[in-house]
Amino acid sequence: MNYSIVFYLIGWILNIEAGFMLLPCLTALIYREKEGLAFVAVIALCLLIGLPLVLRKPKNRVFYLREGFVSTALSWIVLSCAGALPFLLSGSISNPVDALFETVSGFTTTGASILSDVEVLPRCILFWRSFTHWIGGMGVLVFLLILLPASGGSHMNLMKAESPGPSVSRLAPKVKTTARVLYLIYFFLTALLIVLLVSGGMPLFDSLIHAFGTAGTGGFSSKNSSIAGYNMYLQVVITVFMVLFGVNFNAYFFILLKKFRQAFNIEEVRTYLAILLAATLVIAFDIAGQFADFGHAFQQSAFQVASIMTTTGFATTDFNAWPQVSRTILVILMFVGACAGSTGGGIKVSRLVLLIKSVTKELQLTLHPRSIKKIQVDGKSVEHEVIRSTNVFLVVYIMVFTVSLLLISFDDLDMVTNFTAVAATMNNIGPGLELVGPTGNFAMFSDFSKLVLIFDMLAGRLELFPLLLLFSKNTWKKF
Amino acid sequence: MNYSIVFYLIGWILNIEAGFMLLPCLTALIYREKEGLAFVAVIALCLLIGLPLVLRKPKNRVFYLREGFVSTALSWIVLSCAGALPFLLSGSISNPVDALFETVSGFTTTGASILSDVEVLPRCILFWRSFTHWIGGMGVLVFLLILLPASGGSHMNLMKAESPGPSVSRLAPKVKTTARVLYLIYFFLTALLIVLLVSGGMPLFDSLIHAFGTAGTGGFSSKNSSIAGYNMYLQVVITVFMVLFGVNFNAYFFILLKKFRQAFNIEEVRTYLAILLAATLVIAFDIAGQFADFGHAFQQSAFQVASIMTTTGFATTDFNAWPQVSRTILVILMFVGACAGSTGGGIKVSRLVLLIKSVTKELQLTLHPRSIKKIQVDGKSVEHEVIRSTNVFLVVYIMVFTVSLLLISFDDLDMVTNFTAVAATMNNIGPGLELVGPTGNFAMFSDFSKLVLIFDMLAGRLELFPLLLLFSKNTWKKF
Repeated sequence: MNYSIVFYLIGWILNIEAGFMLLPCLTALIYREKEGLAFVAVIALCLLIGLPLVLRKPKNRVFYLREGFVSTALSWIVLSCAGALPFLLSGSISNPVDALFETVSGFTTTGASILSDVEVLPRCILFWRSFTHWIGGMGVLVFLLILLPASGGSHMNLMKAESPGPSVSRLAPKVKTTARVLYLIYFFLTALLIVLLVSGGMPLFDSLIHAFGTAGTGGFSSKNSSIAGYNMYLQVVITVFMVLFGVNFNAYFFILLKKFRQAFNIEEVRTYLAILLAATLVIAFDIAGQFADFGHAFQQSAFQVASIMTTTGFATTDFNAWPQVSRTILVILMFVGACAGSTGGGIKVSRLVLLIKSVTKELQLTLHPRSIKKIQVDGKSVEHEVIRSTNVFLVVYIMVFTVSLLLISFDDLDMVTNFTAVAATMNNIGPGLELVGPTGNFAMFSDFSKLVLIFDMLAGRLELFPLLLLFSKNTWKKF
Repeated sequence: MNYSIVFYLIGWILNIEAGFMLLPCLTALIYREKEGLAFVAVIALCLLIGLPLVLRKPKNRVFYLREGFVSTALSWIVLSCAGALPFLLSGSISNPVDALFETVSGFTTTGASILSDVEVLPRCILFWRSFTHWIGGMGVLVFLLILLPASGGSHMNLMKAESPGPSVSRLAPKVKTTARVLYLIYFFLTALLIVLLVSGGMPLFDSLIHAFGTAGTGGFSSKNSSIAGYNMYLQVVITVFMVLFGVNFNAYFFILLKKFRQAFNIEEVRTYLAILLAATLVIAFDIAGQFADFGHAFQQSAFQVASIMTTTGFATTDFNAWPQVSRTILVILMFVGACAGSTGGGIKVSRLVLLIKSVTKELQLTLHPRSIKKIQVDGKSVEHEVIRSTNVFLVVYIMVFTVSLLLISFDDLDMVTNFTAVAATMNNIGPGLELVGPTGNFAMFSDFSKLVLIFDMLAGRLELFPLLLLFSKNTWKKF
């Protein structure tokens, strides 16, 4: 392990976080909230540790995938610990585990909360809580790549470690350019959403909060009733943008290059949209009886399906009270998740596509043992390595899920609560069913269970391996 | 597809089933039950169709894995349909779907029932119901292999299709000998169990019923309270034998050859026993408060853990009322299942071992990208093909599970019932939790859901592929 470069990167993360915290400071100034001082203190602390770390340039420039994974995992942990301090210092959350839970839930764009009343929070705290979604959505290391000079393969290996999906596709020849393009698209779409929300009558502050929650597919709201209190236009706008932020950003890049055909031919995106539509229709029929007309049922179904599948987690209604078919579909969608290369979580549609193709190939092989077709996606052969690591991902996913389920069962809550609590955190969604449903929260879990779920949120966001490697003895060996 | 040989094999299956039905006929004679006539009628019908089919020897001897899979799937369907007739003709079950459910549940050694009161059934029907467990446990095609002359690779491909586990190991150079040895061990262990049960005070008829249920890891009982009414000695004997029938039969073969060291060194068996012990201990501590002393809690825990993990499904207590940790462990064990090459169901311990090893290897590969270690089990390198098909198995398993869960959710029962109903049928266990718990049954499901669960039982017993291939257009092509 090349420790010097890992510390160097963590130093940068702290400095960047200090920079990001200027925004809640500004919010506090505008609304004249004394809680802004908490941010000032944390900024000072971050710089105090961060600046010395970046001043000593690492001599050893060796940077393998191992260093990428470890830097990413540690960065996210440091980011979350520092990000939790304002909640504690301002007195908004008194239990340190709760503060960490809320912050990790923010950065990982989960949106699961331990708070039952968010409307009493100061605005600067609300802003920071939702802004973490926006930072975590595209990834803080991806942001860092825009600033850092390239060195010894570090860029690609950091990108691989932090970006979701079975394989990373570089949009541009340089990783740095790719990161910049990604953030530009992200910024532009978020800005457009804010404009549309404000023009629909949502106050500017609420628009920012909900735009951050939508863009990062996070789900924290400034209202206790989430999106339910807003008008139909705003609900539809948010539905559309949740879907948009769940799309593989490659599609937007193709659109930027005016390669419209390629953009609409991405198999993952087509599958994603097809699943969204199918699920929306089935649920709309299933819940039609609860609404005045089918149109309204369809709109509510579309909102909830988009919210769950993109792993955002906003709610306009208590879907926990829906019939079993709808509940089951929502639980299945929790696992499917959004596209790779989007801000969404879950197992990802591209993995699903790969897995289904590998099954079809195996059936084919049983019938014709000598056929040697390779699996193709978007007209290109998929490397054997990608298939294998997708399979391994699935196995690790199931293992982490099972162990988590067992560990939190010691709280003796009901099984559906436990199952969907793990599903909602590992897939970075937010609400689950029963006690953790849209009208509930995660406060009743013990601190131990909350720590398990914190691990799950991080494991889900970083796609398991970076976090698991921290537990391997071999990882920490010097060269 | 070589149709002539498929029909030939199905003919044999019908004749063998007619032979097996002589035993319930005998039971009816002994207890002077008029329901025995139902068996006489079905025997006649089976022979009427079966004899002409076997008289015409197939000219085409070509027999690939494809033919093996299709013959196996169709054989099991024919076997179940014919086996369900006595239930209908005797008036014991009036709904044809229910009769098929009960029979498939028997042959697949699931033990899930649609009956709320089994004690009113005639003895010949009870005998047949439990005897199907014994037939299905080791496999009816494996039985057939003992009788048939070998031809064109048919033996190995039938063995592969019907025997559970990621790979079939031949105990003897000839498949025919292997099949004979397996049935000898099976017969001997069953006989020993019957002797031990009778000597413990269980009536002979009940001993036969429970020996069939234990040997096949099925779980049908002749009592409504399953094993709860029997004394401690009988419960312990059944616990031990459930564990024994969940062991990979290779171990017994090594013991027969006096290779004791090899027998106890099988990794799968060691892992299986370790999981059994660990789960028993945790649950014993978890439920200790409900029993007079720890010893009793341990005994009850051991019985239930063995019953679920070997996928037998007998019950001595209502584990649905246990605390959440115990319930969660039991649900996890449902999926793990017993050893490959045993009569048990589930995903199988050997697959678990392979999957865990492939994960460890992948983590290793991230740290040292150039290492090229092969995965080893029992000191031998595992073929890449076996790993791949194990991964594909897992994916198909999850897909069939998910679709089944969605389809039965239309009955609008609670989610834990639905989830464990699919788990209990696909893993061939029997009882699940909530409405399908040890004190419940599967009667409240709609006929459509029952058909889905029938499919799941067959898919679970035949390990998915044979049944799925029936739905592929290419399977049915002539050469």
